Amino acid sequence: MTITFYDIPSTNPEIAWSLNTFKTRYEGHSLTACTWYSTSLLRYTLNFKGIPYKTEWVEYPDIEPLCKKIGIPPTSKKADGRDHYTLPAIHDPSTGSYISNSILIAEYLEKTYPGTPQVFPHNTLALQTTFGQAFEDNISSLWNFIVPAVYVNLNPQSQEYFRRTREKSFGKVMEDITPKGEAAVAQWAQFRDELGKVDTWYAKNGGQGPFLLGDALSWGDIAVASCLIWLRIVWGEGSLQWKDISSWNNGRWAGIVDAMKKYETVV
Amino acid sequence: MTITFYDIPSTNPEIAWSLNTFKTRYEGHSLTACTWYSTSLLRYTLNFKGIPYKTEWVEYPDIEPLCKKIGIPPTSKKADGRDHYTLPAIHDPSTGSYISNSILIAEYLEKTYPGTPQVFPHNTLALQTTFGQAFEDNISSLWNFIVPAVYVNLNPQSQEYFRRTREKSFGKVMEDITPKGEAAVAQWAQFRDELGKVDTWYAKNGGQGPFLLGDALSWGDIAVASCLIWLRIVWGEGSLQWKDISSWNNGRWAGIVDAMKKYETVV
Repeated sequence: MTITFYDIPSTNPEIAWSLNTFKTRYEGHSLTACTWYSTSLLRYTLNFKGIPYKTEWVEYPDIEPLCKKIGIPPTSKKADGRDHYTLPAIHDPSTGSYISNSILIAEYLEKTYPGTPQVFPHNTLALQTTFGQAFEDNISSLWNFIVPAVYVNLNPQSQEYFRRTREKSFGKVMEDITPKGEAAVAQWAQFRDELGKVDTWYAKNGGQGPFLLGDALSWGDIAVASCLIWLRIVWGEGSLQWKDISSWNNGRWAGIVDAMKKYETVV
Repeated sequence: MTITFYDIPSTNPEIAWSLNTFKTRYEGHSLTACTWYSTSLLRYTLNFKGIPYKTEWVEYPDIEPLCKKIGIPPTSKKADGRDHYTLPAIHDPSTGSYISNSILIAEYLEKTYPGTPQVFPHNTLALQTTFGQAFEDNISSLWNFIVPAVYVNLNPQSQEYFRRTREKSFGKVMEDITPKGEAAVAQWAQFRDELGKVDTWYAKNGGQGPFLLGDALSWGDIAVASCLIWLRIVWGEGSLQWKDISSWNNGRWAGIVDAMKKYETVV
């Protein structure tokens, strides 16, 4: 009766942190970007809750056929009105449920396994949902840098799919998405400022711990840590990018990832 | 030893809900907009906490001289680098403190009067701060409609100041700020969609009450209700605008204001 966690594989040795499509607001429009962010959210959540699960790896072009076959619901509509299927998703044989969308899965787990540590304590689901969206909306300068870096971490069959869909979203060939020269410097500084705004939110946590609620981990931290560990893994811990990010805001970002270390396990 | 609450007067009969300048993000830049929103935040907070206070009314052009004279700190810098003074502000004679900025005042009250009902329960200050900012960032279509409506509610000496500073911010004469015809219809629909996004956040509150945390009022609700009651008062309860807003999202917005009724008192 073990939960199956459907995730996307990578050639990166740290395969725990796999890949997903998700939508981020970009000048008011939905842009399908690429990330390992969403599936990390669920992996941290399952590990934090201590709920047993096994991982099934699904390449990009196989996601939609799998979901349709076994009955995992779509998470959104595509621009042309067709259903859009994304991972993470789970199958829980103990209830017969098939669920997609990381926060909906987290809500399901919270209700179905009430004895496990809560990611929405004190009925903060509404506040946590807002925080997660505000965080995502706030880091729009990141995508141009990370999408091409993610691409090289994919297996060939996912690379073809990923290149085709992302080049359509960005209106550029993969190799032109990341800005160069002074434009890169300016946009990277913008990303630093975007995280700086998130730092002002964290600065209100009372200083009793690295997390939003102080010493108690909750969904908002999982969202932030999922994004950060994804950057660390895609670029590498020794990369200039990760070293730079680690130095920002008095080490807050590396600190949050460190504080989550015990929930990183890949099953 | 009663707290003094410095607020801005209005010719509107419902003078409880007075006026303030505050910053809202507008295409990534700070725009000084006008609102009764910020001072309402504090009035709701003081009433919810049951902390006695008296109101001192200060016209717009008198804010900076008063703050400098009695020692109320500025809340931000103007574009030219000079200090910017805004209301609400308080003087608490029991500690000798002069404080400005509604959320900083709320934090001060929470620490100084720990026996009163909490607006940041369960150490949610960081989450509540994020929610308040996300809410403000999310209703950018509102300002073009409300600023000229606020203008007509001011006393003459504040009107002159308000017209001069807002026309500079918007780059338009007051009478041209609100769009007309089809542009107005489109932008009003955009505002409806912006509140619709906030509705999706509220929809996650578990349905146990009208508030973000369910049946327990907290800062995020005070932020939303302050904005809504401001709109209701500026346009009037019988206005087409307020009737329209009241009909959106199954009456959520009028419902939140109604649920806050007992904290509306003007002292």
